[in-house]
Amino acid sequence: MSENTVVRFVKRPQGFVDESSFAIESAPMPTPADGQVLVRAFYHSLDPYMRPRMTEMDSYVPPFDVGQIMSGRGMGVVVASRHPEYKDGDVVVGMLQWAGYQAADPGGLMRKLESGAAPWKDYLGVLGSASLTAYVGLKLIGEPRGGETLYVSAASGAVGSIAAQLGKIMGCRVVGSAGTDDKVAWLKSELCLDAAFNYRTAKSMDAALAEHCPEGIDIDFENVGGDTLQAALDHIRPHGRIIMCGAISEYNQPGSGLKRIFRIVSHKVRMQGFIVSEHVDMMPAFTADMAAWLKDGKIKYRETIVEGIENMPRALVGLFRGENFGKLIVRVGDEPHQTVKAAVAPASRGSA
Amino acid sequence: MSENTVVRFVKRPQGFVDESSFAIESAPMPTPADGQVLVRAFYHSLDPYMRPRMTEMDSYVPPFDVGQIMSGRGMGVVVASRHPEYKDGDVVVGMLQWAGYQAADPGGLMRKLESGAAPWKDYLGVLGSASLTAYVGLKLIGEPRGGETLYVSAASGAVGSIAAQLGKIMGCRVVGSAGTDDKVAWLKSELCLDAAFNYRTAKSMDAALAEHCPEGIDIDFENVGGDTLQAALDHIRPHGRIIMCGAISEYNQPGSGLKRIFRIVSHKVRMQGFIVSEHVDMMPAFTADMAAWLKDGKIKYRETIVEGIENMPRALVGLFRGENFGKLIVRVGDEPHQTVKAAVAPASRGSA
Repeated sequence: MSENTVVRFVKRPQGFVDESSFAIESAPMPTPADGQVLVRAFYHSLDPYMRPRMTEMDSYVPPFDVGQIMSGRGMGVVVASRHPEYKDGDVVVGMLQWAGYQAADPGGLMRKLESGAAPWKDYLGVLGSASLTAYVGLKLIGEPRGGETLYVSAASGAVGSIAAQLGKIMGCRVVGSAGTDDKVAWLKSELCLDAAFNYRTAKSMDAALAEHCPEGIDIDFENVGGDTLQAALDHIRPHGRIIMCGAISEYNQPGSGLKRIFRIVSHKVRMQGFIVSEHVDMMPAFTADMAAWLKDGKIKYRETIVEGIENMPRALVGLFRGENFGKLIVRVGDEPHQTVKAAVAPASRGSA
Repeated sequence: MSENTVVRFVKRPQGFVDESSFAIESAPMPTPADGQVLVRAFYHSLDPYMRPRMTEMDSYVPPFDVGQIMSGRGMGVVVASRHPEYKDGDVVVGMLQWAGYQAADPGGLMRKLESGAAPWKDYLGVLGSASLTAYVGLKLIGEPRGGETLYVSAASGAVGSIAAQLGKIMGCRVVGSAGTDDKVAWLKSELCLDAAFNYRTAKSMDAALAEHCPEGIDIDFENVGGDTLQAALDHIRPHGRIIMCGAISEYNQPGSGLKRIFRIVSHKVRMQGFIVSEHVDMMPAFTADMAAWLKDGKIKYRETIVEGIENMPRALVGLFRGENFGKLIVRVGDEPHQTVKAAVAPASRGSA
């Protein structure tokens, strides 16, 4: 246990990010200072928001510095503690470096997890930030009323798949789009959406929305931007809400610009962005609701698990090409054993 | 009194509207049916929203039909009544045809005005829909907090000039833009805005906002769209609000598209459209507030008065070229005499 592996951000991408922006390096084993813990990571989460952080833009999180070790949400186990409230074997979730081992200041960005409540992986997956994002966006901005039409782009993704199912739970007619026929089939057969289509093979986004949302869209849960957002705006109904969650199609290359914005006036549309980290106060309500929905089989999810820290750059690049199906997680080490007491039946999950 | 003059909409404009879309015609004097009144118009209001109505678009009001007599808000006096609640001499405001005389169904879209409360013209001007639009937009969507920066485009216009002054009353730092140096001088010297600039002579909208809103924009009262909206979005602060009131720059020619929409996500921006006609419930509060502000000299305004119904097409075309200064009103006949009892000092108004 004398050597560590880290992933460093070495070059800002121009256009589509590729693996050359990252370097896999050996590093010395870190030594925790007083008040720190040594964490062995076992899961890392890969998420679309990481791409904007690679550009020097004015964003909600500061950009990555060239030369720094990459970071994101992850999960690990304490293997050496110099902090009075942490002991060996404690499992933590929070902002972690892309590293096998790291010396970290616990608290603030990291929280300790209770053993036995849920499979560890779920804290990055169905119980994690992506699902909370779907919950917050729909509750605070979407404000669905029964019978309204909710359109979800990237509906087989980590956020979209939860947003779509929450829409069903809240009584909406839900229409989703995704980028492969397999994903579309899953949206229809497993998530029981009212309609779903493959945006890559549709004649156009406009034609697809005209077909599947013939009476228009009341709520757009927007993950994609670009042509997808344009079509959603063109089909929005009076008093429609556009939940601006992300714009993944514009992260690697600028969008062509949103036209016909007068429709926001004429249709009295509310288009609103949010960042989930400002709404962690909703985490307890979310966790309770989600546990109940999982127990009742009302929420299903998929995960794509990639093995090995050395594959993180390739997996992240693939995320922007739609290669994942559901939440994208990297396993970088063995998870600690636990016996899960919670009544969440594995069969209801449909993990990939 | 046997002949009438009407303005007919005869051709949908392609691109910039010009006078060829209208025809001035003689028409027989209308005869009111039972339950109707014969109204002699004396003022008509010309407003930017009329341009979208000339296009067959999906808008909040149905498009004008080719061949119909134009219509808009106006004010007139009853000269013959076949309605039990109206008598000769009653003054009404509401949706009127562009016509010297018309037989109209009162009620609904038309209300009777009390003589003596305010100069008649003010019901289309400072006490009218444009001012209510400013009030509703700021109160319901802008939600200004003291010390915030409010940017108002088309700030010398009917809506913008009121929005800018309401922003000052609500404790904002207010920055406005307009299209002539005279207008800019008025914004600074008469409306006492914190900063104002001529968007036509500025190096760029971006440079102008960087100079005049160095800490960014909390609230954008958006009347213009296009490059103006783009610059406002590029300078919006976290939790900023974009009050989507209009997009006059895009009414005659499509905008080039709003880019960098991810900023709506990253800065947690709320961009919201509204239509004043859905908020007439705020009229009493608005009228009371505005009367008090006028009395205290806190609201000043300008009007451009055009003479003669035959000049309405030319005046409307000019509105899209910024030829008006403040509210654009057409006088199509003599206003009935009244003695105004209200304590609104003419000197505080600065009428053009």
